[in-house]
Amino acid sequence: METKGISQAVIGRLPRYFRYLGELKDEGVERISSQDLSDLMKVTASQIRQDLNNFGGFGQQGYGYKVEYLYDEISKILGMDKKHNLVIIGAGNLGQALANYMNFERRGFIFTGIFDTNPEVIGKKIKDLKVLPMNELETFISDNDIDIAVLTIPKTSAAEVALRLAGTDIKGIWNFAHVDLNVPDRIMVENVHLSDSLMKLSYNINRHEEVI
Amino acid sequence: METKGISQAVIGRLPRYFRYLGELKDEGVERISSQDLSDLMKVTASQIRQDLNNFGGFGQQGYGYKVEYLYDEISKILGMDKKHNLVIIGAGNLGQALANYMNFERRGFIFTGIFDTNPEVIGKKIKDLKVLPMNELETFISDNDIDIAVLTIPKTSAAEVALRLAGTDIKGIWNFAHVDLNVPDRIMVENVHLSDSLMKLSYNINRHEEVI
Repeated sequence: METKGISQAVIGRLPRYFRYLGELKDEGVERISSQDLSDLMKVTASQIRQDLNNFGGFGQQGYGYKVEYLYDEISKILGMDKKHNLVIIGAGNLGQALANYMNFERRGFIFTGIFDTNPEVIGKKIKDLKVLPMNELETFISDNDIDIAVLTIPKTSAAEVALRLAGTDIKGIWNFAHVDLNVPDRIMVENVHLSDSLMKLSYNINRHEEVI
Repeated sequence: METKGISQAVIGRLPRYFRYLGELKDEGVERISSQDLSDLMKVTASQIRQDLNNFGGFGQQGYGYKVEYLYDEISKILGMDKKHNLVIIGAGNLGQALANYMNFERRGFIFTGIFDTNPEVIGKKIKDLKVLPMNELETFISDNDIDIAVLTIPKTSAAEVALRLAGTDIKGIWNFAHVDLNVPDRIMVENVHLSDSLMKLSYNINRHEEVI
């Protein structure tokens, strides 16, 4: 599959296509016109055609998109046909929330270990995982073929942990710490900056009130 | 302040400027050149100038940006000079994680109430808030001048709750449920779709491996 030069904006929209197509598939829908998909997703039909054309396009004129085929292809593009082993670093509320969220496992993201520095938390069970001390991190990552580390720690310790992760074979960091990480280019970083998202909401509320 | 017609992309970047400028301010830095800010934020100096020009621009040639002034102005643009009262709907791990995150309060986002449907959870204390039953939601929102509802509930109940919120004077929804909400245009919605973010990371890991 040729996927060179696709913008991160398009990539960012793919999971949403994947979600809607998954729901259509679950409802037994076999095909859908770009217009119906457009109405459902509230995106223009032309945007949908443009986005999906990046991957060679899967629609046929006057026939629409085959739901299951398109779902499977996007699944492969997103790497959802592969399993990923994850560790969570930071066993606080957020780390626990992620560990307990079953849908990630269904999608092939397997939480394999969870780490913390707090002696009162180490040894406790979260779901079926015993919280491990941070000094076991590197060994655990190499022994368990971990490719993604989830950082649910305060920003004050994030830089130090990122440095340690840079010394492992990890391929990606899902970063909830409210700081930008410095890691080698071979490690992909996806940030979830919750405060930024809340500020954006605040801006839009504010702006909307001014317009009225 | 003239802020018409600014793209959501620029708006999306403002919280990051706000974060870096806040750190510079805390470190006692009084002014910074666009080049130094560019090195720090790993964004081109021209991008910084373009972004900040949307708001009239705050830099002076050969002098740089005044950190505190710029921080204050962005703060106002983002509506951070106003307080917001929030309710959390869904007292699970994620709801608790958000309720316990002190930085939101520091920024003027005050968690005022937390709601759940589970009788075993109702009445429990999270931080200093007692979990309330869902039948008190509308009254609580109007009595406590709530402007933002945070949805940390499964997607199966999100549509019903969104419908109820549409009947209140709420101004924004911070939506963690993995579904797009249907609400009137006067209610701003900011989505945090964690699965989408994880899939994007998966894509980038996958893609990076293919390139190598």
